[in-house]
This record gives sequence, structure tokens and C-alpha cells, in this order.
Amino acid sequence: MANISKKVSWSGRGDDRGERTPLLNGAEDGKYNRHVLNFVFQSLDYDNSENQLFLEEERRMSHMGFRCLETRRWVICGLIGFLTGLIACLIDIAVEKLAGYKYSAVKQNIEKFTEFGGLSISLILWAVLNSAFVMVGAIAVAFFEPFAAGSGIPQIKCYLNGVKIPRVVRLKTLAIKVFGVICSVAGGLAVGKEGPMIHSGAVVAAGVSQGRSTSLKKDFKIFEYFRRDTEKRDFVSAGAAAGVSAAFGAPVGGVLFSLEEGASFWNQMLTWRIFFASMISTFTLNFFLSIYHGKPGELSSPGLINFGRFDSDSVQYNLYEIPLFIIMGALGGVLGALFNVINYWLTIFRIRYIHRPCLQVMEAMLVAAVTATVSFAMIYFSNDCQPLGQDNTEEYSLQLFCADGEYNSMATAFFNTPERSVRSLFHNPPGSYNPLTLGVFTLAYFVLAVWTYGLTVSAGVFIPSLLIGAAWGRLFGILLSTITSIWFCCVNLTGGIVRMTLSLTVILVEATGSVTYGFPIMLVLMTAKIVGDYFIEGLYDVHIKLQSVPFLHWEAPPTSHWLTAREVMSSPVTCFNRVEKVGRIVDVLSNTSTNHNGFPVVAHTTENDEPGKICGLILRSQLIVLLKHKVFVERASSRLSHRKLQLKDFRDAYPRFPPIQSIHVSQDERECMMDLTEFMNPTPYTVPQETSLPRVFKLFRALGLRHLVVVDNENRVVGLVTRKDLARYHLGKDGLEELHLAQT
Amino acid sequence: MANISKKVSWSGRGDDRGERTPLLNGAEDGKYNRHVLNFVFQSLDYDNSENQLFLEEERRMSHMGFRCLETRRWVICGLIGFLTGLIACLIDIAVEKLAGYKYSAVKQNIEKFTEFGGLSISLILWAVLNSAFVMVGAIAVAFFEPFAAGSGIPQIKCYLNGVKIPRVVRLKTLAIKVFGVICSVAGGLAVGKEGPMIHSGAVVAAGVSQGRSTSLKKDFKIFEYFRRDTEKRDFVSAGAAAGVSAAFGAPVGGVLFSLEEGASFWNQMLTWRIFFASMISTFTLNFFLSIYHGKPGELSSPGLINFGRFDSDSVQYNLYEIPLFIIMGALGGVLGALFNVINYWLTIFRIRYIHRPCLQVMEAMLVAAVTATVSFAMIYFSNDCQPLGQDNTEEYSLQLFCADGEYNSMATAFFNTPERSVRSLFHNPPGSYNPLTLGVFTLAYFVLAVWTYGLTVSAGVFIPSLLIGAAWGRLFGILLSTITSIWFCCVNLTGGIVRMTLSLTVILVEATGSVTYGFPIMLVLMTAKIVGDYFIEGLYDVHIKLQSVPFLHWEAPPTSHWLTAREVMSSPVTCFNRVEKVGRIVDVLSNTSTNHNGFPVVAHTTENDEPGKICGLILRSQLIVLLKHKVFVERASSRLSHRKLQLKDFRDAYPRFPPIQSIHVSQDERECMMDLTEFMNPTPYTVPQETSLPRVFKLFRALGLRHLVVVDNENRVVGLVTRKDLARYHLGKDGLEELHLAQT
Repeated sequence: MANISKKVSWSGRGDDRGERTPLLNGAEDGKYNRHVLNFVFQSLDYDNSENQLFLEEERRMSHMGFRCLETRRWVICGLIGFLTGLIACLIDIAVEKLAGYKYSAVKQNIEKFTEFGGLSISLILWAVLNSAFVMVGAIAVAFFEPFAAGSGIPQIKCYLNGVKIPRVVRLKTLAIKVFGVICSVAGGLAVGKEGPMIHSGAVVAAGVSQGRSTSLKKDFKIFEYFRRDTEKRDFVSAGAAAGVSAAFGAPVGGVLFSLEEGASFWNQMLTWRIFFASMISTFTLNFFLSIYHGKPGELSSPGLINFGRFDSDSVQYNLYEIPLFIIMGALGGVLGALFNVINYWLTIFRIRYIHRPCLQVMEAMLVAAVTATVSFAMIYFSNDCQPLGQDNTEEYSLQLFCADGEYNSMATAFFNTPERSVRSLFHNPPGSYNPLTLGVFTLAYFVLAVWTYGLTVSAGVFIPSLLIGAAWGRLFGILLSTITSIWFCCVNLTGGIVRMTLSLTVILVEATGSVTYGFPIMLVLMTAKIVGDYFIEGLYDVHIKLQSVPFLHWEAPPTSHWLTAREVMSSPVTCFNRVEKVGRIVDVLSNTSTNHNGFPVVAHTTENDEPGKICGLILRSQLIVLLKHKVFVERASSRLSHRKLQLKDFRDAYPRFPPIQSIHVSQDERECMMDLTEFMNPTPYTVPQETSLPRVFKLFRALGLRHLVVVDNENRVVGLVTRKDLARYHLGKDGLEELHLAQT
Repeated sequence: MANISKKVSWSGRGDDRGERTPLLNGAEDGKYNRHVLNFVFQSLDYDNSENQLFLEEERRMSHMGFRCLETRRWVICGLIGFLTGLIACLIDIAVEKLAGYKYSAVKQNIEKFTEFGGLSISLILWAVLNSAFVMVGAIAVAFFEPFAAGSGIPQIKCYLNGVKIPRVVRLKTLAIKVFGVICSVAGGLAVGKEGPMIHSGAVVAAGVSQGRSTSLKKDFKIFEYFRRDTEKRDFVSAGAAAGVSAAFGAPVGGVLFSLEEGASFWNQMLTWRIFFASMISTFTLNFFLSIYHGKPGELSSPGLINFGRFDSDSVQYNLYEIPLFIIMGALGGVLGALFNVINYWLTIFRIRYIHRPCLQVMEAMLVAAVTATVSFAMIYFSNDCQPLGQDNTEEYSLQLFCADGEYNSMATAFFNTPERSVRSLFHNPPGSYNPLTLGVFTLAYFVLAVWTYGLTVSAGVFIPSLLIGAAWGRLFGILLSTITSIWFCCVNLTGGIVRMTLSLTVILVEATGSVTYGFPIMLVLMTAKIVGDYFIEGLYDVHIKLQSVPFLHWEAPPTSHWLTAREVMSSPVTCFNRVEKVGRIVDVLSNTSTNHNGFPVVAHTTENDEPGKICGLILRSQLIVLLKHKVFVERASSRLSHRKLQLKDFRDAYPRFPPIQSIHVSQDERECMMDLTEFMNPTPYTVPQETSLPRVFKLFRALGLRHLVVVDNENRVVGLVTRKDLARYHLGKDGLEELHLAQT
């Protein structure tokens, strides 16, 4: 276990579509490669570059100025919440409308053919409608923005962890994401619309906080101060929280999600802003949905998923049920692990064989058709007829072969959007389902959900897992007939799959509106997590690992105390002098084989390979801006007429700094010199070579570092530790051996 | 505003009782003193000293060993939760019993005298009973353990912030605390038993995690690995969370409390353990209380305070109520600020004039008597008679001058423990109170609560503030008669007083068991916080500031970018050589005027005032242990027969390292040399002199540092930044001017 020095090997065979699926083109092939962690994934510069320009700006700012900034941050968070809420509202209404049309059409058709026979036509109609919806969504995702695929939660996890997944917070991604999720839910796939909300919230945050859209080439000239990774990441965590909040009506859960995923470095003011964004988001959704449902002012739809209200009597549990909860949790952990393992193999299969967009679209359509067929078959062969109650709230209840005044209970589970099915399972009176129906449904839906997650459509796994859990919990409740409240145990599967104990508890408590269940929910989730972790990681972590993201875990591997910075660091380091020749800078930046992003600046020339004394750290992005503006010493005199380079110039170029190739530097200019003093960070964090890996790790994690300079006792640069250097040590840990075996 | 370089002045006139009230003997008098921050308050060494001994131990440990450690951590957290729950249970039962006896006695007496006149005897009986209870509690606190006074939340806040308040986590403090809180609640003071639970949980955690009690001189020889500040602090945060959880039945709220107060450096595994401790704690309390109440298995008492269950119909709110919530919040903020301001002046008065234990006891008794008198007068003069309903649940309903079948409604508010009064206010049917009763009650209780907080008794401010808020909210609800749900607004006052927005929301949502109110509660709390902050800080922060604790805020003051490490650091620094003369070490440690705790170790002798190159950092506590074991170079040969000094020796001495005066070093030994290489931390964090204050601050906050070595570009030690150096910059900020004016 945890063989730290194990050479990491990776053979996710990339495809030939260049930038389109960089998520998957890990490293070349088979054999070990130092840069096994994807080039595509850059890290965020969470640590401020406190160079002279920055300090001058900060020092010029008055107390009032800081207060203004703070107010602006609150305004932005309010906006993020508002827009996220609106998007959630849009998705909800669109899905309801489209699914409504679809189910009405199919229902009419079924009713027409039930009497005369020929139901296969209805089946075909259903399958075609499903496939058509899914096709549109899959085409949008596969051909226009592959990064909009899936729930987006792994990507946001990575972003909050400090990894910049390219294009993940762009406007285009958001548009495709929203469109895609509407299509896939309306297309009847075993998916939820909740996961994508988190991604959507994050994109909204990244967009709003910058006060411009690079895609639309529109700059509102506001919020310019926030155009750097530090600020942007903070807002993105607010956006993710707002997304969770809108999805589940769970503002505190949203805050905890952001904390659980990203916040090793965290402060109180930020948390309050995140909280504010979450509040506004659920409120906006609630407000507009209430108006849409014709009950303005009642505010009864705080989230996309709405479990309805529970009687306080029905949410009582007894002491002797606790061992049962634990057993349920353990079972959920095992089932969740099974889900993850199957999905893991499926994903590897997809990476290998299904990497062309058209294949991906076809697979999605196939799944949609199969989902319709399975559903239809279930409904058709089920003879579980239940009397239509007075208070029957099913919108699309199917009579099918049942007697008049009865309806097919399998249809309530399958002939419905997953959210509604969950609600039915929670609330329908005892006896609404027979055990066989539930058992078959659970099994079928489990298989469908496993198959569906990872398709090239935009959708989440949350609701399907809740639905399977709810059905199974209901089954359990029937079998142990005395226990009426057992159905709440639906959470255990979700816990087994995604393993977000803390935030999930709060999310579910808030979503069900019932605190009484808090303790058993926690108990179940923790058991599910412990049991599940024994087999395989959480689903999101599995996918993150499969994409070889340089993800930093919470702590250094336990047995890594014998490693020091010396073993971990990259060495030798490419350093620059305080005053450096332009030619050398261009050459270093153009060297695609190294592709470094941070360069220590040293005091003396390093001709004879003697390391120089550290005097700063400069980033690739800063050098690019300097080169673009030709800030050369020789031009200083002529520059007097020009204006001095300002922080604004860096901000304008952020975040899409041009590649070095696009900057023309003439032969004359190559001979010029560049003075980096003003622009480098003069006080980068440094550690001596003897520092242990856990200590280095802690520094990285606590400060969100990207580069850490390693110095000897004379303060001379001897190495550089990057986030990727550290992440590599974790990839070696559990599960990679199998991964290796699986792929070779 | 925020005049950073302002000289801090402080004149809390200390008293002459030495260690007994070190909380208050800030600095000498009137004029500025560099060591204005109390000597008594040491910082925690949250940063591990990764010396050779430590690394050797870690490297020897197998993967299995780490897993065992992790398991042990979980076991400890379980124990912490269990014991905290038990203590809560004990307090609850004891208070109920004692208060029951008291109220029965007084009730009988009142009933006896109502007919015949002579109720003044009843008043005297009541006042005497109250005073007697309070006297016993106050004597215990004032004479035996002054640190057990108050709610303990400010002290725990400080501890989580990284300040070691002496004796705050000792067994004796716990015993006095528990005893004191039982007495003061039973004594009828306007206090709650919830705040002290947080302190109790923290003490339990500090005790259990160390596997021994220094006070009882009992060492169980378990959990020895956890005998250092880093681990202990983590467990204390779990204990505080468990305390909140037991007090309010709010496990998630507990976790958030710990996060909100202490966790700038935080990780996921720790959070889960904290969560686990919280779960166990509320469950234990629930379990035992259910048995005590004769309903085992029903699990209906998750916390000390129990608001009872709400109908889901009554917890509905409407859109047009939202502006009202905001107004309520603002009002709550203003009232809370008023509370804090009055209490602040009162505390200053107490610091100046009431510092003898006997005076303190007398004040407490006076307050108890006055509370009884006011209550009695209220009840006596109130003619608000209400019919005794069928479902009347009042245990001590007083008929007094009311007609038969009626009861005095003022008595339900006053003749009761505060928890029960809150519940009555929440649940009694509309019309149970008339507006005048409520208005008078609110006012009287407000005054009493302000006066009570800060007395030398062990008690919390949480429940009184909830009670005032509930009464006032109920009044509001009557005045705006259409709005039935307005009474929930009781939270706003609590928010205005303590200002813990995030955790308080969750605590209240969990305690009321109703998620529907989540959003309005947040809204109210945030408004209350914003409005309140405009006037004065939160109550706990006021008290922390009054005690001149070196408390680190979340961020550096905004306009501090023009300050660098050079301006903040202490300089010159007392350094030691790698191999240092014992005499010099003893002299330095004995120098009471400096009293340093961390010493950079340098490579060369510093004879000619040239600073030496940094090669490590050693703590006073480590040096003490070395001196005690006479680890001198000259004895190395003879030590061969002895065993080598191990980490165990440091752990055995932890946390009460003997003072230097108690270690005898002979004249011969003074000439010996000590080799520090093996024991110093060879890789302390360092920063260059030019590092800006916010950057230094961030490093401190993120890593929980105590000392940060400032070096020049040759890696030579030029200064040392300590937590106190940083805290001093914050004391300069808002409010200190007035504080200064107030005290001189």
C-alpha cells in the first residue's frame, strides 16, 4: 500500500482531436514519464504576487477604498446568487415543460393503443422521443464543448483544489451545460439536473466577478480589481455553493460543500459571503418558481429537488432502529462501491474505445432508447395496480391494463422525471407499491444509472442515486413492516457513491426540511463512507484520478516523513537574473519540453552552474505581458514618453494570456535587457532542502501555493517544488496499481 | 480609524492577587508598554517542531502504525462526545431537580400566604433560596477557580485561535464549572447552562486526549502520541463542537462553531472527527435523558435546550414578511449593541472596583436577590390572568390572585428555568400573554441579563438572550396581529449580542428542528450582525479585548500593506548557537524581563553582533527538558550508559513544563556545552525582511505559527515575529481609542 516511490504509469490512450479532449490524453504511452500529470492542467496562482506594482496600488488605497472593495465583493456575491437562481429556474421550467409535452404525447399514445393492441408503436414513439432529446444534447456537448459533459462536480472540485481545468468556467461551457442538462433530463435518462447546477454556479461566479466576458469580447470595466486567480477562486467557491443551494434548497449545505471540497485556506469573511450568495440563490429560485407556479409569496420551492413536507409524526425514529441504520449504511457503502467500480471500468472502456464525438452521441442515444425500452417493459409486465386515491398527485398516472379507478404503480416510478419519482416514493401512502415492483425497479435503475454516468451528456448522478436508494429503502421498509420510517435510508446509496459526508448530511437535512433525521442520516452516511472507502474511492475522485489531474489531497501520505524537499523538488531550476536578456527569456518560454510557469529570479549570473541567491519569483504570465509591452531597459528612455506599465495591463491580459509564439520579438530586441525587479514577487515562500515532505505539503495546502522555492543555507536556489511534484506522490497511492493493471 | 501605528495604552488596574486574576492584570499602568499583551497568555505551538527525534519516530512508524493512530483519534473523539454528553445530562438533571425543589417550596409558600396576606415572607424565602444557591456557586468560582467564571466561550475562542489561557482546560476548572453552572441556574439567575457546555466539552477533550490527568497525578499511559499542542488543539475543537452539540442538539452547528471560531487551518479528516464527536455527544445526552424521563428509546431530547416541536403549518412565512424580518434584524442589532455597550462599561467597572473574591460573591448574591425581587414584583403586580387550558404543561403555574381555573401568565415567564420559559413563549397558544406583560418582562429581563453577564458565576448568555428575544418577538407578533409566525424572530437579539452568523443559524435551525425558517433566520442574523458591528463588536470579542489577549483576527488590517516584517518583528533576537554554553542558556531563560519562548539557533557565534545564519528554532519548553535531563556534550561519554533522550521525555513533561527556577544547574554544569542540533526544529519557516505584513499575517494564520524568523538575503537572523507582535497591530484598530478614553 502507498508505495510512495512507485513509478507512476499511465496509458490512457489520448485521441487525435487535440485540445478537444485534453481531459483524457494523460501522457504518451506505457512507460513512465516525469510529466505524467497532464500538461493541460495548470495550477491557479492563489498566492498573490506581491510585486512593487501591487504594493504601490495597495498602499495608495485608503481605508475607504478597501471598504468599497469589500462592498463590491458582497454585491458580486449577491449577483452570483441571483443569476444562479435564475438559471436553476430556467432549467426547472424548461425541463418541466419539455418532459410534460413528452409524457402527454406518450400517454395519449399508450391510452390509444392499450385497447386496440399495438403498444409497440408507443414504445417506439417513446424511445424515439427520448433519443431525439438526448441526441440534441449530446451533439451540443460532444461537438461544441466536451467540458460540459457530466455533472461538472469533479471539475469544480479540481478548480477549488487549485487546478485550472481549461475552459471549465467559460460562458460557452455554461450555455452548453444548461442546454445539455435540459435535453438529457427531458430525454428521460437516469440523470439529475442538480449536479450541473454546481458547475453553472461556478461559471456564473467566474464570469460576474471579472466584470467582462472574453468570449463575447465585452468588457464592462467593472470589478477590475478582482482579475486574478486569488479573487476569482474565492468567487468560484461562492458560485459552487450558490449552485448547491439552488439545486437542493440547502444554503448551509452549499457553504459546507465549498468548505469540504476546496477550503483548506479559508476565512470568515469569505464564508459569510459564500453564505450570502447561497441565500440569495435559493431565495431567487424560490421566488420565481413560486410566481411560475401561480403561488407568489408562498415561497415553497427552495430548491430544484423538493422532497415535499413531512409530518412530524412520521419522522420519528427509535433506538432499536439504530443498528438497522448502520446495516443500511454498510449495505449502501457496498452498493455504492459496486456502482463506482462498474462505472470505473466503463469509463476506462469509454476512454479506450468511445472517444469520437459521433460515437459518443450514438452511445448516448442508445442509452436513451434502452432506458425507454426498459421502462416500458417494466410498466408493461408489471401488474401492480393500485387504486387511484382522492389525493393522487401523479400528473401522468397510467391506467394501462389496470381496472378503472386504478393506476399502474410501476409507471409512477418510470413514467416521470426522476425528481417526481423520488417524491412519490417518499410520500405515497404505505401499500402504494408491492415489493416485487420495487425490487425490479431498483435493479433496473441501478444498471441504467451506472451506464448513464460518464456519457457525453450534461447531467448529474445525485438524483438517480437518491431514487435508487429511495426505492430500495421503501422495499426494505415493506420487508421489515413494523418500521415505517425506514425509507429515509435512501441517502445511504448516495453516500456510498459520492462520499461527501458532512455537506451531504446538511444538504439532505435541509432538502427534506426535517432535522430529526439528522443523526441517522449522519450515521448512515458515515458508515457508507467507511465501508465504501474500503473498496474504492468516491465516484468523483475516481473520475478525477482517471483524468490524471494534479489534485492535492488533504494531507501528505502518512509514511512520507522520510522524504524531504530535496527528493521532491524539480532540479535544476531555470532561473532568471534580475536583469535578463530578452533572448534568453523568449527561448526559455518557448521551450515546449519544459513548459515551466514560475521562475525564480536570482541575484547573480549563474554561468558556472553555481546556483544564485534567490531574490524573487516571476510567473510565465507576467513575463508574457512584459514581452508584449516590450518593457526593455533600452527603451526606458523612450518609454518616458510612454506611460509606465501598470497592474491594469496584467489584469487586462488575464486570464487568457497569449502564448509566447504569438509575441513577435525581433532579432534586435532579443539583445535587449529586461529588468524584472519591479514585476517579480520579491518575497516568495522558501524552504530549506531538509524540510520534510509533510511540512512542504502543509505549506502548499495551507497557502494554496503553486511554486515553492527550495534554497540552501546561503539562500541560493537549488530547486523548485510545484503542485504537480506533490500531486505525483499521491497518485502513487492506493488504487493506482489496479489502474495500471487495468490499462496495460 | 485603524491607525495602525497608534501606541496602545491600557490601564486595566490589576489587583494584587497574583495568578488568581491574571485575566485582568494587563500591563502596569497608564503609559505604553511594549509587552502590553498579557505575559500570562502564551501561544500554542501549533506548528510541529520537526526535529530529528520527531522525524526518527515518524520514520520508524509503519503504515499500520499510522492507521492505528488514526483509529485512536476516532476513539478519542468518540470518548469526548460520550463524556460531554454525560456531563450535559448531569447538569440537566441536577438543575431540574434543584430548581424543582426550589419552585415547589416557593410555590407552596406563596399559595399558603396568598389567602392570608404576608406574601413578603414568600419573597424573602425566594430571594434567600436564590442567593444561597448563587452564593455556593460564586464562592466555588471566585475562591477556587476564577477561570471557570462566565460562559467560557471567550476562553475557548482564544484557545481555538491559538492562545493558551492558563488553567482553562484543567480538570479542576471543569469540576468548578459544572458545579457553578448548576448553582447559578438553580439560583434563578438570568443565565443559561448552554455556554458552559462548550467549555466543558473542551476540557473533556483536553483531558481525554492526553490520557492522563496532571491534577490527579494519574497517567493511564495511553494516547502518549497526542501530547503536544498540535494534536491537543485539534481535539479541543472537537470537544467544543461536542459541547455545542449537546447544548443545543445541533451537531452540524457544533462543527460550524468550531470552524467559525478556530479553523483557519483545517482539514477534512479533522472535520469528520469533530462531526463524529458532536454526533456521539448529542446522542449520549438524548439516550440518557430519554431513560431519565422514562421514555427510553424515544430519543426526544437531543439537546439541553429543547424548543419542542413545531407544526409544519405554523412555520410558514410569506414574501411580504421579509422586509419585516430585516427590520427585526436591524432592531436586534441595535439592542444587541446596547447590551454589549452596557455590559462593556459594567465590566470595566468590575475590573476597577469589584476584584476581591468576597466582593464578587456579594455582587452575585445581590443580583440573585434582585432577580427574585424583580420577578416577584412582576408577578405580584401583573394582573394578566389566563385560563388554565386542558393541555397546560406548566409545571409550576401560579394561581396567585387569579380566579380559580386561571393562572398568572407573568409567572410562566418568571417562575421557571429560562429554558422552560423560552419553550412556553414559543408554544403557548395565541392570547396566553397580554402585550403589557410581555413588554415589561422584556425590559426587566434585559436589564437583569446585562447585569448578570460577567458576574463571577459560571453561566452563559445564550438562553437569556433567546428568552428576551422570544418575549419581544411575541409582543411584536401581537402588535402586528396578522403575522402569527413573527415570534421566531427571537433569534435576532442573540445574533446582535454574539454575532456568530453562520453557526448560530445552523444551531437554531437544528434546535428548532425546522428548516423552513432557515432563510429568515439567516437574514435576521446577518442584518443583526451588520447593524451591530456598526456600533460595537460581539460580546465575546468585547470581553476578549478587555482581557488583552493576543488574539489573531482573520486578516491583517486592510491598510497594512505599507508595513513589512522589518517593522513588525522584535529585534535584536536572542539566538543560540548550535552548541551553546549551558550558563548562557540558563541566563537567557531566567531573564524575566524578556521571557521569550522561541529562540533561533544560528550557525556561528554572534560575538561581534553580526547576525548568524539561521539553522533552526528551539523552544523554551524543549530547552527546559534538556536542562532537566542534563543533556550536555561533556556527559555524552557517560551518557552512553544512560539511555538517549527521547520524544517521550518531552511528552512526559508536557504541558506543564517546570519553570527554569526549579531546575538546579551547578556552577560546574554552567561551563558545560549543550548540542541543540538534534532537538531544534531544523526547518523553521522564514521570511525575508521585505515581506509585507498581510503576507506575514497570512502565513501565521494559515499555519498556526507562534514564531516566524525574519532573515536577510544571506539567511542571517535579523528578527523574530511572534503572535503577540501581530496581535498588537489589531488592538490598535477600532474601538481601542474609546477603550483608552474610557479607562484613563
